[in-house]
Formats: sequence, C-alpha cells, structure tokens
Amino acid sequence: MEDPYSNEPQRHPALHTSSLRPYNAEPPSALLVDSFITPTALFYVRNHLPVPDVDEKSYELEISGVGIKSTTLTLEDIKKFPKHSVTACIQCAGNRRSEMNQVKQVKGLEWGSAAIGNATWSGARLYDVLTSLGLKEDDPRVRHIQFDGLDTDVTNVPYGASIPVEKGMDPRGDVLLAYEMNGEPLTRDHGFPIRVIVPGTVGARNVKWLGSIVVAEEESLSHWQQNDYKGFSPSVDWHNVDFKTASAIQELPITSVIGEPTSGASLRLDKGKIKLKGYAFSGGGHQVVRVDITADKGQSWHTAQLIQEPTRPPRHWGWTLWTADIPVDPKASQVEFWVKAVDNSYNTQPESFSHIWNLRGVLNNAYHRVKVNIIK
Amino acid sequence: MEDPYSNEPQRHPALHTSSLRPYNAEPPSALLVDSFITPTALFYVRNHLPVPDVDEKSYELEISGVGIKSTTLTLEDIKKFPKHSVTACIQCAGNRRSEMNQVKQVKGLEWGSAAIGNATWSGARLYDVLTSLGLKEDDPRVRHIQFDGLDTDVTNVPYGASIPVEKGMDPRGDVLLAYEMNGEPLTRDHGFPIRVIVPGTVGARNVKWLGSIVVAEEESLSHWQQNDYKGFSPSVDWHNVDFKTASAIQELPITSVIGEPTSGASLRLDKGKIKLKGYAFSGGGHQVVRVDITADKGQSWHTAQLIQEPTRPPRHWGWTLWTADIPVDPKASQVEFWVKAVDNSYNTQPESFSHIWNLRGVLNNAYHRVKVNIIK
Repeated sequence: MEDPYSNEPQRHPALHTSSLRPYNAEPPSALLVDSFITPTALFYVRNHLPVPDVDEKSYELEISGVGIKSTTLTLEDIKKFPKHSVTACIQCAGNRRSEMNQVKQVKGLEWGSAAIGNATWSGARLYDVLTSLGLKEDDPRVRHIQFDGLDTDVTNVPYGASIPVEKGMDPRGDVLLAYEMNGEPLTRDHGFPIRVIVPGTVGARNVKWLGSIVVAEEESLSHWQQNDYKGFSPSVDWHNVDFKTASAIQELPITSVIGEPTSGASLRLDKGKIKLKGYAFSGGGHQVVRVDITADKGQSWHTAQLIQEPTRPPRHWGWTLWTADIPVDPKASQVEFWVKAVDNSYNTQPESFSHIWNLRGVLNNAYHRVKVNIIK
Repeated sequence: MEDPYSNEPQRHPALHTSSLRPYNAEPPSALLVDSFITPTALFYVRNHLPVPDVDEKSYELEISGVGIKSTTLTLEDIKKFPKHSVTACIQCAGNRRSEMNQVKQVKGLEWGSAAIGNATWSGARLYDVLTSLGLKEDDPRVRHIQFDGLDTDVTNVPYGASIPVEKGMDPRGDVLLAYEMNGEPLTRDHGFPIRVIVPGTVGARNVKWLGSIVVAEEESLSHWQQNDYKGFSPSVDWHNVDFKTASAIQELPITSVIGEPTSGASLRLDKGKIKLKGYAFSGGGHQVVRVDITADKGQSWHTAQLIQEPTRPPRHWGWTLWTADIPVDPKASQVEFWVKAVDNSYNTQPESFSHIWNLRGVLNNAYHRVKVNIIK
C-alpha cells in the first residue's frame, strides 16, 4: 500500500507542528498578531486526513438533495457566478487547548493560541449557487447543508460537516465556495481548488477540498459532526459522554489573546510601561467592542486600542487586533497580564478554565494570561 | 401644575416595587419561573416616565425619514397588515443589579432577578409596514430605526430609542408593532395601544406607547440611547466616563437564574435532594443549549432539564425554563447553589461580578448564587 502521506505539500519553516500525519501547525503568536490579514503561508493548518492532490481541470463538485436540481459543477462553472470577497477569521475549535490541559488533561492536539487566522476569501456565494438550482430559502424540508471533502481515510470515508440552512441560505450569511485566499488561488493545505468559507463559524465546518454538497433534513452523519466538535459540562468524561446530548459547535464564543509578549519573556519597561499586542474575535458576525487588560489581577483594567474593518452588523466576520501600553509597578520583577474581550452582544469571557473544562478541550475562551519577567 | 402621576393604572399586589414615580416593579422570582408564558399582570414593569393615557380612537403613529414615504397610521391601519405572533423574552438591562451592588454601589433601580418575562406578542411586522412605504432593506443611507414613545417628561421630551436597520428590516428579525400581549390588547403599563417588540433585544429598545418611527442614518439622540444603557470597563467611573466610547446595548448576553428556592430559604431534603427551578436566556435569537448547576462550588456540575419552544435558528426569541434535582451532602446545614448557562454560540457566563462591574449596573450576567438552610 502506498503511503497516503507521501504527497504532502511544502510548509513554511516558521510553523510550529502539533501533528505531522495528518499535518497540523500554527505560526508563532507574535508573528500572527503582526498582520491584520494573515499571510497564507503562515495561516494555521488543520488537516484531519492526508492532503488530496486535486487536478483543477478534472475537478467536479456534486450537488444534490431535497428541493434542488442535482448537478455537477466544474471549477469554471463555479467561477461563472458573481465573485464575492469577504474578510473572515477562521478559528479551530481547539485553539488554546494547551491552556485547558493545565487544569486537567483533555484529548486532542496540543494547540497554542495561534490556531486562528484572518484572510480575505473570494468565490461564489453558496446562496447564489443553490438558488440557481431551485432551492427556496424557506423550504420546510431543508434544515442543513452538508459538505464532504475530497480527503478520505483508509476506508475511503471523507471528511464531512454541515451547517444550518438558516446560515447557508442567508443572503447576508456570506457563505462562499471560495477559490481564492488573499487574492491567490487556494494552496493545497487550505483546500485547493474549492473550500467552503462559513464566516463566523468554527473552522471544522469550513470544509476544504470540497467534493459534494447535499441539502438535507439532517445534519452531516460524519464523525466530526456527530461525535466530535461539541461542548460538554466539566462533569462529563469519556466513561459517561453521550454525544447525542450536545449541539454541534457552529458559532464560536468571544475570545481574546495576548500575542506579544509571550509567557516567560524578559522585558525592560519603556517609560514605565510594557506594550502588548493581540487579537480578539467573536463568532456569528459579532463585533468586538472592547478589550480590557489588567496587570494587577483585576484591581484595575486598561482599555486597548482596536484595529478592525468598518463592517456592519451582523457581518463582523473579521477579527480585531489590539494594542495597549500597560503601566507596570517599577519595583516588580514579574508581572502577569490578563486579557478579556467584550462583543456587541456584551458577551464576555469566563475568568478561568476550571468551569468550562470539557473532555475534548474545545471552546477554550477563558481569560488569556501571560507572565513576563521585568529586566531592571 | 397637574401631578403627572395622577393617572397611573392599577397594578397587581404581588409585584415588588423598586420605584413608584416612575413606576417600576417585578414579580417574586418563584412565581415568575412557574409559567413558561408570564401572565401579563405579573410581567415586570419598567417605566421611565408617567404612563400616558392614550385614546385608541384618536391614536396616530407618525412614520418618516430617509428613503421612505412619510405617513400617519391609525390603529386600524396597523391592524390591516398581516398579523404575526412571536413568543419573546424581554429583559431589563439592569436585571439582577442588586447582585452587582454587592461588589460596589452602582447608579440605578435596585432590581432583583425578575426584571424579565416571556410573553406572546402579536401585531404587524415592522418589515411589512416600512416596505409598504417604499423602504429598501439595502438603502445605504439608512442605518438606524428610531422610535419615540408618547410618554414625556416635564419639558415634553419623549422616551426614545433606536435599533440597527439590519435588525429592524430583517424579515427574520420578527420586529413587531405589537397591539396584543398574551392574546389581549396591551395593558397601559405595557404600552397600549402599540409597543415595538424587538425580539432578542434589551427591553429599553422595545419602546412602549409608540408615537413615531424615524428611519435615519443616526441612532436616536435620546438620553437613553446616547448616555445610558451602555456597558463600560470596571475601571470607568462617573468622573471619567465618556458615553460616546461605548456601544448602545442591543442584544443581551447569556444569563441564568435560580428562581426557586430563594436565598435564605429553609428546606428539608427530599430523598437527599433539593429541587431547583429557574430561567435562562440569551439575546440575539440564540438558543440556550445547557444549564449547569453546582452545589459544591464547581467541583461537580449537574445538567438541568430544559423547557423551551421548538424554534429554529436564528429565532430563539423565547426564554428557557429549567428544573434540576440536586443531591446535597446530608450532613450540611447550609448549601450554596450556583447556576450558569451555555447558548448555541457556546458563550457562557462570567463567574463573578467583580470583573464585569460597570457604573450603571447593567449586563449583570455572572453566575447566580443562592444559599439555603437545610432543615434536619
């Protein structure tokens, strides 16, 4: 048997690898928060299976299901639909899992805080494609839109996921069949030739190497929709978990991270202050409206400067970068910074990981804490 | 001068009054969580000004603004539009303020945990009314829909508020010009003859005794839109607050409350357990997917049974009631319960009030904690 991983693409040497087969990697967090648009080569890679090698000339996307005319589209067919561009942040459900692991070990890749990125995606709107095939937004038989990738396991089962029809068929939902990332054709690691982009929705539903779309009453039956990427109470563990009882993660909750400095750094104060840089993001098109930082365990909070696109509700799909110059006690030899963000529904982050701990280590959105040493 | 409060309606004797002039009151929390649909007479009342006495025969609603034909509608005109019904939870931004006051005193009415209710509202869709007057959903000049009430202060300034056009003109947003509450004409305290119902949005934007609608580029200039009902960092106080820097509260964050038992109650264990009842709610049409209760400060969590309507995303406008039988250490003489809820964006509540404290005492959604005595 041929090694299914013998034909993987080249990767950027700056990426930190969390798994080689399948390949999973993230950039250094300080590099990540340096660019509002994440360079494609530095964008985190989350592969569940070997990367397929798709020939764009013979590429076909199958579309079928309830209330729709079955069809097969080539890449050229997809490019004939009006081209839409959207800047959207994509985040792995397991981003920041390493912090949750400090409470109690969970099952999953040991992600740092950079399994997230913000890119400009271009392609056809899923709404336009499905509407052209006769699908009606309010067809009562249709509840979910299922996607399968062209990546498969050894038994030929593909990666799969689904989204609610209310998202997929919302003309303001901006779901794309994307063929470009940051103005260039998708790279192989990011889904060449077509990836679904579901703005405001967890990375796992943004299916890469898209092979088929099925419009259906049910969610995708794939492992990743049914028995993974769900949140549970801290008291649920592997001996008593019932995946049917929880809802599949779609929109992600509000989060924020200090990208620079990183924990353990040794820094000199600049006019009594330390400069912090980071990101914040909330799913579902929510806008980040405030980022608060404390250097004294919450006795006082400083409000960061925000960098974000001037989008309108409910389409705040991109992330927010932020900077803050935080005064530090000049006598201290160490300081711990905490960050929390607030979105336009005024949801905010839980303080610690203890009460959001879950067996799969997803939804790690407690306050981010970074401890640095002060050089005199 | 005539006393502006000389013509107030009668109120239900079970309501706890937090202010008489203007009248503000809430029901006992145990009574509140007894009914999925809150009886009109027990629904919390939040009045900012004296209650106007409106004659339905001469009632007129003025509509004007950018991109729309100015008009005046009578109550009969409004009733000619298709009648829509929606079950929606309305919550005061200051609900649970008394708990935040325990951290540090804030300015505002001393609400308990019952400034919230769930009712079935019926009326004309704002979308239908404005569309009939020529407004286009995507008119780039239109950003906000402003509402003024017929309630006025001594200088004749009315109560006013606004919502983003993306909410008001969303056909799935279910914004109503409501003339019925729970199948009956609105009562005077709840906005007779017409109240705007903005499902998923803070009570303050659900303007009562609606007198005018203005479609505009700007938010309402009213005090309550510009200089109230906004959230700030705990480090902002009255000497340094700048209301321009914060965004007006619209959608409310996830919250949950133990309605019964109440703090200080003395109870006997039933087969080693205590039965808890409560509510949970998340704004913006988010569904509550889980309610967790602990009786041991988070060492173990119990998942509650949920009671909710089978609505579809993004239209989970109603609240969730919940019940849970929680085992309690039989040797204990006291037990403290905490509750937290999770919604379908997997947002959850902050643990304590310290880090969400804000000078106006709004957005009080930390864990709800109830301490009871155990009778042997």
